[in-house]
Amino acid sequence: MPANAMPTAAMLVIGDEILSGRTRDSNLHHLARELTGAGIELREARVVGDDHAAIVAALRALSPAHDHVFTSGGIGPTHDDITADAVAEAMGAPIGHRADAMALLAAHYAARGMEFNTARQRMARIPDGAALIDNPVSIAPGFTLGNVHVMAGVPSIFEAMLASVLPGLTGGAPLMSQNLRVLKGEGEIAGPFGALAAEYPDLSMGSYPFQQDGAVGTNLVIRGQDPGRIAEAMLRLAKLVE
Amino acid sequence: MPANAMPTAAMLVIGDEILSGRTRDSNLHHLARELTGAGIELREARVVGDDHAAIVAALRALSPAHDHVFTSGGIGPTHDDITADAVAEAMGAPIGHRADAMALLAAHYAARGMEFNTARQRMARIPDGAALIDNPVSIAPGFTLGNVHVMAGVPSIFEAMLASVLPGLTGGAPLMSQNLRVLKGEGEIAGPFGALAAEYPDLSMGSYPFQQDGAVGTNLVIRGQDPGRIAEAMLRLAKLVE
Repeated sequence: MPANAMPTAAMLVIGDEILSGRTRDSNLHHLARELTGAGIELREARVVGDDHAAIVAALRALSPAHDHVFTSGGIGPTHDDITADAVAEAMGAPIGHRADAMALLAAHYAARGMEFNTARQRMARIPDGAALIDNPVSIAPGFTLGNVHVMAGVPSIFEAMLASVLPGLTGGAPLMSQNLRVLKGEGEIAGPFGALAAEYPDLSMGSYPFQQDGAVGTNLVIRGQDPGRIAEAMLRLAKLVE
Repeated sequence: MPANAMPTAAMLVIGDEILSGRTRDSNLHHLARELTGAGIELREARVVGDDHAAIVAALRALSPAHDHVFTSGGIGPTHDDITADAVAEAMGAPIGHRADAMALLAAHYAARGMEFNTARQRMARIPDGAALIDNPVSIAPGFTLGNVHVMAGVPSIFEAMLASVLPGLTGGAPLMSQNLRVLKGEGEIAGPFGALAAEYPDLSMGSYPFQQDGAVGTNLVIRGQDPGRIAEAMLRLAKLVE
């Protein structure tokens, strides 16, 4: 990629509980904020259920299209935790109970006097060639295979795993943004705002309406990697909407 | 589809602000809950930015694969509101400023003494053959074209539009669920739980760990369309984890 280009990423959220509405996903929002800060552009996201074929198909579409893919969910001990096997199939890697993960988990349960049973051993299924991702909350590791980072769905664990993965990734210049809050409707300023956006193809400009105490307003956001360009565009925007 | 099968649906969330982390999407969760109640299975969701090609590609994948597709975002008056044109292209429909939508909007702004300018007229761009979806909050309509339901991103408007669309759709028997909360870790019960799930292929069983006051527990959820089967499986599950 060119020196100034941002690496791109995709997210795959895995879990029936998100699609049934039982659980409200929060990992997408967390990942989006963290990647933006790290200079990696989250370009798309998908949500699929606990369905082997759906996970494989999504990964085969996302992995070649982006620099990084982050998954959440489906790495626990129960029958519906099928992410590791699906990732292995999608990436063409063999998978089994890996010795390093078995050792981690065996020590964890032994220290607590808990049985390291067949179900728990399932969490040691890690594809060959994958690097383990530390799980400081409940030990069962995530892993990185190729450009796919496989992490837990429980938000506290997802966030801890991301914190350990992110510093090792190379980002571009972080994406910065400035916000201008105006007490005018979107439709009142859309014309000049659109014309300004066309003059700055290197920046991304968006408008987000709000209502507050019966008044209508709009947040105008300018995003980009060059703070000087953002400041220049923001100055012109401020004059436009005075 | 067979008489007892549930129709399937997909969601397409559109907006740079979701992927940059500026805004936390809440429409997916709302749609998931509403569809589950209506007997329609939300099978997958995607999030893309304000990018014409990305929206078109997602719709061309989702529309033929599901009974319904619901979109949120990108139907306002500004330059980054490109959903209607992308839907028209994806579905092969011509698009222009439609007379019915123009009349709605013109009356709205006239009543408020506001100019019906070029930007606001953009919200009357509706594909030929689409049925308008009422917007009780801010007038600018959504629309249904083929099996694609195009709605606003602002949650209050999305929810109002969905409420007017949903009663017209034919659902299967609603998906019901029962929850069993146990103070045991997932790994302790995963073996028998998985064996039980294999005996009830018509039901979906999932487990969701939690921590509370230092204790580890799991919510075991059984979902399905037949309340008798769910009750029978739940009774067996309760005995298994006693």
